[in-house]
Amino acid sequence: MSASKSRKATASEESLWRIFTVPEAPESTLSKIEQALSEDLEGFLSQNIVALEKPLHEIEKDFRAFEIPDSPKFVSDYTEEMMQTLIAHSVHTAAPSFIGHMTSALPYFVLPLSKMMVGLNQNLVKIETSKAFTPLERQVLGMMHHLIFAEQPSFYQRWMHSADHSLGAFCSGGTVANISALWIARNRLLKPDGEFSGVTQDGLFAGLRHYGWDDLAILVSERGHYSLGKTADLLGIGRKNIIPIATDANNRVDVTAMRQAAAQLAERNVRVMAIIGVAGTTETGNVDPLNELADLAAELQCHFHVDAAWGGASLMSRKYRHLLAGIERADSVTIDAHKQMYVPMGAGMVIFKDPELARSIVHHAEYILRRGSKDLGSQTLEGSRPGMAMLVHACLQIIGREGYEILIDNSLGKARYFASLIKQHPDFELISEPELCLLTYRYVPLKVRRALAEAVEQQQWPRVEKINKLLDELTQTIQKSQREQGKSFVSRTRLQPAVYQRQSVTVLRVVLANPLTSEQILKDVLNEQVTIAETKSHLLNQLDKLCQPI
Amino acid sequence: MSASKSRKATASEESLWRIFTVPEAPESTLSKIEQALSEDLEGFLSQNIVALEKPLHEIEKDFRAFEIPDSPKFVSDYTEEMMQTLIAHSVHTAAPSFIGHMTSALPYFVLPLSKMMVGLNQNLVKIETSKAFTPLERQVLGMMHHLIFAEQPSFYQRWMHSADHSLGAFCSGGTVANISALWIARNRLLKPDGEFSGVTQDGLFAGLRHYGWDDLAILVSERGHYSLGKTADLLGIGRKNIIPIATDANNRVDVTAMRQAAAQLAERNVRVMAIIGVAGTTETGNVDPLNELADLAAELQCHFHVDAAWGGASLMSRKYRHLLAGIERADSVTIDAHKQMYVPMGAGMVIFKDPELARSIVHHAEYILRRGSKDLGSQTLEGSRPGMAMLVHACLQIIGREGYEILIDNSLGKARYFASLIKQHPDFELISEPELCLLTYRYVPLKVRRALAEAVEQQQWPRVEKINKLLDELTQTIQKSQREQGKSFVSRTRLQPAVYQRQSVTVLRVVLANPLTSEQILKDVLNEQVTIAETKSHLLNQLDKLCQPI
Repeated sequence: MSASKSRKATASEESLWRIFTVPEAPESTLSKIEQALSEDLEGFLSQNIVALEKPLHEIEKDFRAFEIPDSPKFVSDYTEEMMQTLIAHSVHTAAPSFIGHMTSALPYFVLPLSKMMVGLNQNLVKIETSKAFTPLERQVLGMMHHLIFAEQPSFYQRWMHSADHSLGAFCSGGTVANISALWIARNRLLKPDGEFSGVTQDGLFAGLRHYGWDDLAILVSERGHYSLGKTADLLGIGRKNIIPIATDANNRVDVTAMRQAAAQLAERNVRVMAIIGVAGTTETGNVDPLNELADLAAELQCHFHVDAAWGGASLMSRKYRHLLAGIERADSVTIDAHKQMYVPMGAGMVIFKDPELARSIVHHAEYILRRGSKDLGSQTLEGSRPGMAMLVHACLQIIGREGYEILIDNSLGKARYFASLIKQHPDFELISEPELCLLTYRYVPLKVRRALAEAVEQQQWPRVEKINKLLDELTQTIQKSQREQGKSFVSRTRLQPAVYQRQSVTVLRVVLANPLTSEQILKDVLNEQVTIAETKSHLLNQLDKLCQPI
Repeated sequence: MSASKSRKATASEESLWRIFTVPEAPESTLSKIEQALSEDLEGFLSQNIVALEKPLHEIEKDFRAFEIPDSPKFVSDYTEEMMQTLIAHSVHTAAPSFIGHMTSALPYFVLPLSKMMVGLNQNLVKIETSKAFTPLERQVLGMMHHLIFAEQPSFYQRWMHSADHSLGAFCSGGTVANISALWIARNRLLKPDGEFSGVTQDGLFAGLRHYGWDDLAILVSERGHYSLGKTADLLGIGRKNIIPIATDANNRVDVTAMRQAAAQLAERNVRVMAIIGVAGTTETGNVDPLNELADLAAELQCHFHVDAAWGGASLMSRKYRHLLAGIERADSVTIDAHKQMYVPMGAGMVIFKDPELARSIVHHAEYILRRGSKDLGSQTLEGSRPGMAMLVHACLQIIGREGYEILIDNSLGKARYFASLIKQHPDFELISEPELCLLTYRYVPLKVRRALAEAVEQQQWPRVEKINKLLDELTQTIQKSQREQGKSFVSRTRLQPAVYQRQSVTVLRVVLANPLTSEQILKDVLNEQVTIAETKSHLLNQLDKLCQPI
């Protein structure tokens, strides 16, 4: 290695020609690494990602150079360097004990298929640079449409490959999917009318003046994803017009409250543009009452969007599909294949019930996206984009609906098992029950739990708050320490449980989608948290004091 | 193969466990294909993509099923099927004779690196799911910033890794980059002021009322990319407020006309929000006079964005960098690494001169993107997204600035060579000279060229129009036939050349970025076009008749 470091690459036409024509030799550093990765991905990641966390400011030292280096580097030298500076300090998202986020393990076959996808380097914006990838993407969207809406065969025969229609749009992720759906909702509401050429042409200011409304609003649960605020900003609607609606004790939106909010907005001459149902809230994994929301959308004559970015895959389980009942009444649905569908990062989708829905955002250009063409780019927010649909297609075929069903049933079962572990453990408090495969909890020593319960019963809210503040600190430090130790990872967020009169509390959050997460791992995660907590004697003593009988 | 077809996969926990734990065996179909691809990408693509074009409606027959299959499929069966239905009918974008679009060949090392990237499955939205990938991405943005703005070392030491700042944003492509830049421009203009909480919070309607403007406008060359219209729609500004400004005979925006347009807008109480310079128009490859535009932006006190999605890489050439002079005065610049930087599809970037620029779109969320964190997701339009920055990083290091310089100088030299071939050929007309590595031309038999020149000289515009109409048909049919024959590919678009009094004509368009495109290939492309043209006797005869002396 030190010998190779002394070599110096020089930029010449010949050496450049080689990088485009001569593949990595089988004995090269990069090839060997690639082989190790192909033979045992989990082993490769476990061996090459260092367990003990290096502080970010230390890592940054390796990424301080700000000039593009003049001279080229040998591939092997670059690779060796990156193994030390980048790969070693990346995150082992596929680890069965990494249960804090929605990214999980990948099936092996996606690795060679991804390489094929990159090598083909198709651009899905148009037929000319993607050819068969275009019908393939349309098929995937059709299959997802059928999963949600289950229309008749004739429906798919007629629309799936129709030039002027689309059953959905692929995009980089759920954020762009949500933006696309609400962009369409806005444009359909402020459609051309008489002298007004529509918001697309004339803009939002002219649109509101023409229709005589003082503002537009979007109603969604207070647990809605943060991308919705971003969407309201981007679309010119304004974040204050995303109206957060209270949730019940189970984190499901209160439809009565939403109906009242809509009525108040109407009084203020604010038009409700869309209501959103969340099918799998990011923080607690709960599903809004979608049928009731569909009823309300019909009453308000507005767009009904369902954000099922994370929860949508559950539709493939016959056992749990009913949890999303009513989703088939949505106008648009967001689903991320890179979450519970085990596809690599970068595979978002928005599905449209009505194949004409995307008409309101259609655009054309002379050199591509000509009128009447089947170019996908004429109905998407993004322009050039890769053939990720191929990986979703592969997963749908190779895993199959039944395979997904087993995976999902297992995940949801595992979440229920973990919830029971937490409930049985004297030193933990379950904060939100798993509806899908996500739950929240925190470490609360038995003595503190009793004192807290007593304070709640006696409605001593200031005392409850004091205890919760200390517990917040404890939860945060447990989560950080566990992450830094590198053996396992849970995430954390802040919630307002009904039991504490909506006081904000910090909680641990787990998502149980990795098929390789075993019951033993779950037990170990809890045990490690107990062990960490017991080292925080300063906080435990403070808690102890606070919990003395007054 | 037929034996394998008779096998039937069954969904069971064990078989699912295997796809997450047992890699493809070295002798499996997918492994063999992957190996072939690794050993000779160009050979693999040439052998497996069928040359003769299959009509789209035929291809669609293989993608008609609309139900997610219930039963799983063996990986090998799926792979074999896809080789026939998908890969065979994809587009050989890396072929040296595929010179019609901006997608070109890839360096070999990006294939194994892409596989590594997918295997690592990092999510760049936040540190917790990307760790060292976050400083790496910030470094790439810093390097691109330095390429454009060349600030002092202290600038980069201070801002490159600063939590509350960003030198740019990675995104899926140039469209999202342009949207991000103009989103920021709008939000900075309609900033909080007194009772008004800013467009972010209060929306566009309130913003325009508060500031007392009747509309916002964006000024850009008539050759601006179609994504800008999409941006105006999305941001609520309206497509009619993207004001297309005339270009000179070299397709560069007429800054005097732009200044006049701005004055007229001011009279109508419309505020210019941004002006855009194009550094490499998509259709002709020309660069607007960026310094003059920077002066105008200063006069108008508006945002100056440069869309260098395609042309930006030329900054790495000392010989041609001057063509983009003035870009260093932009507020924001779009560059796509998947165009002239030889990175696979999906690597767009927008670079901000001022590290505080993105503040106007900053957003936070409880469970991620906490205040003060270095999470990249708090300043990007997209949420979850993959670690594509790694591939740009690799190319910058392994190719180096000098390597890119050679590649770019070669591409631009090749375009000049091709232009000279066209000019020397009796039967072709060069429509736009190459400024970067893009040019347009069309097939016009010598006799027709003479008649056309004569008609122009005598200002017989109806006659010119008649001839051009027939030539349009000929150009279109040549382009289609050549594509269908599958040996080579040029694209086509419509332009309004000054010489024909801005009549619209259809032209052939080539982009010469593939390092493997030889002079011989360019000669062959022209020869093939002549051969095709000579078979279109119906059109040639009509042209002949029209060109008889009157």
